[in-house]
Amino acid sequence: MTIAPKQLANAVRALAMDAVQAANSGHPGMPMGMADVATVLFTRYLKFDPKAPKWADRDRFVLSAGHGSMLIYALLHLTGYNRPTMADLANFRQLGSPCAGHPENFELEGVEATTGPLGQGLAMAVGMAMAERHLNAQFGDDLVDHRTWVIAGDGCLMEGINHEAAGLAGHLKLGRMNVLWDDNQITIDGATSLSTSEDIAARYAAYGWHTVACDGHDPEDVARAIEEALADPRPSLIACRTIIGYGAPNKQGTSATHGAALGADEIKAARQVLEWTSEPFVLPDDVTAAWAAAGDRGAPLRAEWEARAAAHADGAEFARRMRGDLPEGFSLDKHLADLIAKPQKLATRKASEIALEAINADLPDTVGGSADLTGSNNTKTKAQKAFTSDDYAGRYVYYGIREFGMSAAMNGMALHGGVIPYGGTFLVFSDYCRPAIRLSALQQARVVYVMTHDSIGLGEDGPTHQPVEHLMSLRLMPNLDVYRPCDTIETAEAWALSLAKADGPSLLALTRQNLPQVRTDVSENLTARGAYRLRAATAERRVLLIATGSEVEIALATADLLEADGIGADVVSMPCWSRFDAQPQAYRDEVLPDLQPEQLLRVSIEAGSTMGWERYTMTRGLRFGVDGFGASGAIEALYEHFGLTAQAIAPKIQATLRELQEK
Amino acid sequence: MTIAPKQLANAVRALAMDAVQAANSGHPGMPMGMADVATVLFTRYLKFDPKAPKWADRDRFVLSAGHGSMLIYALLHLTGYNRPTMADLANFRQLGSPCAGHPENFELEGVEATTGPLGQGLAMAVGMAMAERHLNAQFGDDLVDHRTWVIAGDGCLMEGINHEAAGLAGHLKLGRMNVLWDDNQITIDGATSLSTSEDIAARYAAYGWHTVACDGHDPEDVARAIEEALADPRPSLIACRTIIGYGAPNKQGTSATHGAALGADEIKAARQVLEWTSEPFVLPDDVTAAWAAAGDRGAPLRAEWEARAAAHADGAEFARRMRGDLPEGFSLDKHLADLIAKPQKLATRKASEIALEAINADLPDTVGGSADLTGSNNTKTKAQKAFTSDDYAGRYVYYGIREFGMSAAMNGMALHGGVIPYGGTFLVFSDYCRPAIRLSALQQARVVYVMTHDSIGLGEDGPTHQPVEHLMSLRLMPNLDVYRPCDTIETAEAWALSLAKADGPSLLALTRQNLPQVRTDVSENLTARGAYRLRAATAERRVLLIATGSEVEIALATADLLEADGIGADVVSMPCWSRFDAQPQAYRDEVLPDLQPEQLLRVSIEAGSTMGWERYTMTRGLRFGVDGFGASGAIEALYEHFGLTAQAIAPKIQATLRELQEK
Repeated sequence: MTIAPKQLANAVRALAMDAVQAANSGHPGMPMGMADVATVLFTRYLKFDPKAPKWADRDRFVLSAGHGSMLIYALLHLTGYNRPTMADLANFRQLGSPCAGHPENFELEGVEATTGPLGQGLAMAVGMAMAERHLNAQFGDDLVDHRTWVIAGDGCLMEGINHEAAGLAGHLKLGRMNVLWDDNQITIDGATSLSTSEDIAARYAAYGWHTVACDGHDPEDVARAIEEALADPRPSLIACRTIIGYGAPNKQGTSATHGAALGADEIKAARQVLEWTSEPFVLPDDVTAAWAAAGDRGAPLRAEWEARAAAHADGAEFARRMRGDLPEGFSLDKHLADLIAKPQKLATRKASEIALEAINADLPDTVGGSADLTGSNNTKTKAQKAFTSDDYAGRYVYYGIREFGMSAAMNGMALHGGVIPYGGTFLVFSDYCRPAIRLSALQQARVVYVMTHDSIGLGEDGPTHQPVEHLMSLRLMPNLDVYRPCDTIETAEAWALSLAKADGPSLLALTRQNLPQVRTDVSENLTARGAYRLRAATAERRVLLIATGSEVEIALATADLLEADGIGADVVSMPCWSRFDAQPQAYRDEVLPDLQPEQLLRVSIEAGSTMGWERYTMTRGLRFGVDGFGASGAIEALYEHFGLTAQAIAPKIQATLRELQEK
Repeated sequence: MTIAPKQLANAVRALAMDAVQAANSGHPGMPMGMADVATVLFTRYLKFDPKAPKWADRDRFVLSAGHGSMLIYALLHLTGYNRPTMADLANFRQLGSPCAGHPENFELEGVEATTGPLGQGLAMAVGMAMAERHLNAQFGDDLVDHRTWVIAGDGCLMEGINHEAAGLAGHLKLGRMNVLWDDNQITIDGATSLSTSEDIAARYAAYGWHTVACDGHDPEDVARAIEEALADPRPSLIACRTIIGYGAPNKQGTSATHGAALGADEIKAARQVLEWTSEPFVLPDDVTAAWAAAGDRGAPLRAEWEARAAAHADGAEFARRMRGDLPEGFSLDKHLADLIAKPQKLATRKASEIALEAINADLPDTVGGSADLTGSNNTKTKAQKAFTSDDYAGRYVYYGIREFGMSAAMNGMALHGGVIPYGGTFLVFSDYCRPAIRLSALQQARVVYVMTHDSIGLGEDGPTHQPVEHLMSLRLMPNLDVYRPCDTIETAEAWALSLAKADGPSLLALTRQNLPQVRTDVSENLTARGAYRLRAATAERRVLLIATGSEVEIALATADLLEADGIGADVVSMPCWSRFDAQPQAYRDEVLPDLQPEQLLRVSIEAGSTMGWERYTMTRGLRFGVDGFGASGAIEALYEHFGLTAQAIAPKIQATLRELQEK
């Protein structure tokens, strides 16, 4: 006996309303509204195998409207993934359940991306589709030949990032990407007509997308639209007209179903309407079997693929890429040795470029790019060709003026696997990228952010372009390693560490201005320590100068002035706070001895917020930085204006030492 | 003799290329490309009076492509503004010059908004156009009847925020807004075709905009397009096809003119092409006179307006609104007295709502809104009607799922003057708003951000929705006051302070969960102090607990446990760091006595990043918070999981006290 699609979809609806009711928290409206569409996708089109969730050539499915998490949890359960179990579903949104409020890639296989912050799922899917085409171009159809599917809501399509993502996807002709838009005409505040009047399909057509509409509650009409999308070479937006909360007779079609449990009475009424007689978290055997059969569709395809991969000349390399391992023997040791052999005074953005020359030559995994600041971010190496719709094998993406879209696309690439994305903009515009950087960190995605022009040192562009609070605010983000290297060596070390960190993002804050090469020894990657004594005091040690990036040079000059006055001063370079904090206590005490200012005055120098530096200087130490907005001017004038010169700092340290003595 | 428009435009070109050359820094390409368009606008259409730059009914002009700052500096100088002088222009981009790298509203009258971070100028202009229609609806055509003009570049139109802004403008039918798009087909990286293929006009049409194209170097064609835009009731996008760097014979039409000085040779060649014989920073008298005459166009209109305003029944009230003064006698004292009389246990988001009921009733200036979280942010008061295209007098904006667009629009409203905008979203989505919050602060714009669901306390929505690093990262932003009130009283106090701060933004971080009312006295606005002793130790004081918002309740409970054990504990509520840091040293020492942990152990409790709290706890103090990502679960389970309960905290404090004694 065949089970009608509607009945399969009703299983999703029942699980969604029952789980939300059990949690008394969550969003039943979207899963109930999109159950028919998702059922068509998962039972007829999506290429996947729940028994091999990491199958490299599976289709990627992203629930961009992540608040409808019960939709994907129900689908994963029904199609036969190991988790979530029915008990997990019953435990929806409770501490410890893999069925978190919003879908989390680190909790469940089959959840390809962590979603909930609206619009980003769609933008990450663009990155996945880019990675797919890139790997296809490199490895061929036998190994890489899959699609990227998205369910997006009105919220996703109102967020600015969807403009950046869709514009990029249209430009790159990512025809294997299909977005199923839950066109339910409802947002949290009420009808979409409260806040928008746009013709979304026309807008997507303007981006070069194919668009098609369907009745989201008529499975055959959904299938017709999907077939049309599959046949079209452009990315497709499929407008699925649905009723939010479909099946809940008194609440459907209203925002009342969006973000709260329906209540016992309404659920009872919905069961009648849907002709669904099973108890909560119980499924009829025939429905269970039909869903399991749908989940089994992919197994033969996967077996065929595995056979092809095993026989493929590039199978091992492809497997390495997808595992995320770096190539055996990959290192920057030769590059570092070259730097030591021939010291250079370079901007760290330029130091990053020469590191990338070494990296990109030996690491085929990297895909670079910039949000229209290629020449300023120094992100493109000579041999890199552009990633274009004519040449997906290219390893450099001209992202355009789309910082947020770039960052989210990089997340998608990293999540897809097989590539290591890096991309650049100015550090001040990390604010534009910030929601995506947070998702890189939360999702444990290996993305390298190349953020140049990292302080007032960028000069004349002025306060709109001068980061002040950004370094510190990024250090606050869990699982993000923020590097601010001081020279060519630290820059290369930071790159090596960033590439090696497979479970999270790194951010390089790099200068516009030239910096001397201060490191003379590369026997150890000292940046890995987070901080280290760059130069020990010569005279009796009274001062400990801690600096990062471009201010290390100033710290050294300050130490010179102090030493000339008989005051011994250590200089500590601290390129990465999070790494230093992770060092053993003994190492941290060695670098920052546990002494009060009367014995050893700690001083920080960094051209940014001083707030936070109390952690290392102690409150009674001194902090030199920039706590207000910057200004427009020549770099030398600015450093003088903000008191960030050895000539300005040394006397203040001396005065404090005198005060401490007089106490 | 009439001066040809081209000659007037060439004055702009000459000043732009000469100033950039003098600075050896800047962007000549855009001013040279858009000089003809801007000349048509400023000599024929823009309503303004350089002798009265703050004339309330002037047209607003926003240079969204702010890197082309020399365009507006030249125009302001040529039309007769007091500043910039020719010396200022010659000092372009130097420290102390009002001609900063990017246009800054706080440096020059006539610069309506600080621009440079792309897309935001256009989005702020939407807010200006909203404020204009709102004030028009309230005060009538006699007082308010002006337009909003924007020059935007390809970058502005690629940034995601332009989608949010244009969608909102189309929905609200802001027909008095006209965007002149510098359609030069060039970005920094090269041809726009490197990164985009979209049909921008079709996209704007999809938003409900009127679109028209013109030859940006043919003044009459530009005028034709502008006339068409003026005649159309919809907002207009005028695509001005231009050549970037127009006039520089060897570099025009390429990205080489975008962001660097042209060089002496090319400038010489450009002078020949443009038939411009004057020396740098010298203008022919007839050109000067013609520009001055253009600048004088508005004076009679302004005089007529002033006469109307003087005679208008609402003239004084309108003037008050535009000055930004609060109404005489406005205060929240009665509301505070009511709260004291009848204490309530409320979520601070709800406390904010009841404060807003009092505010909105007495303060006609406020225009509220939410990015589609009205019922969650509690931003709408009962009497507020929606601001719609049918009723611009409404005082509540349904911004849709456009957090960034909302924030930028609020900046535009505040810059326009006459309204005090506030708007809500979840605190975690402050990341989406962050670039605009920074511009609120830099521009000294009175915007009140209502950010609810301010910690793991939001519960089941999980880590994507739980702010962790956000509070601290926002505190880092210069000129932003971040409030995290602990009860109904502090919430009302924070509102009073936010409204009174005319020269910058405030941000209220508010809870989802209920909090007890802990304050019993409102004789002083203690929130104005930033921090204060909420409860003094009873037993001998050994501990000082510092907490904010929802953790004040936990601090009080912790103090109870300690006191029961004979350990005296002060409890300090610290709703606003920046305000506390601005207090006199004596006050700060009174609240946080200058004692080492052996005498007084300082402890912070805040459900967010602990990094930064060393400032107040000292490094040897204790910090309780959340340094990793949150989790999905019920609030009680989460607070227990993260160790943020009195039962978990008190024993740790006691253990530390024992260690300190044993030392």
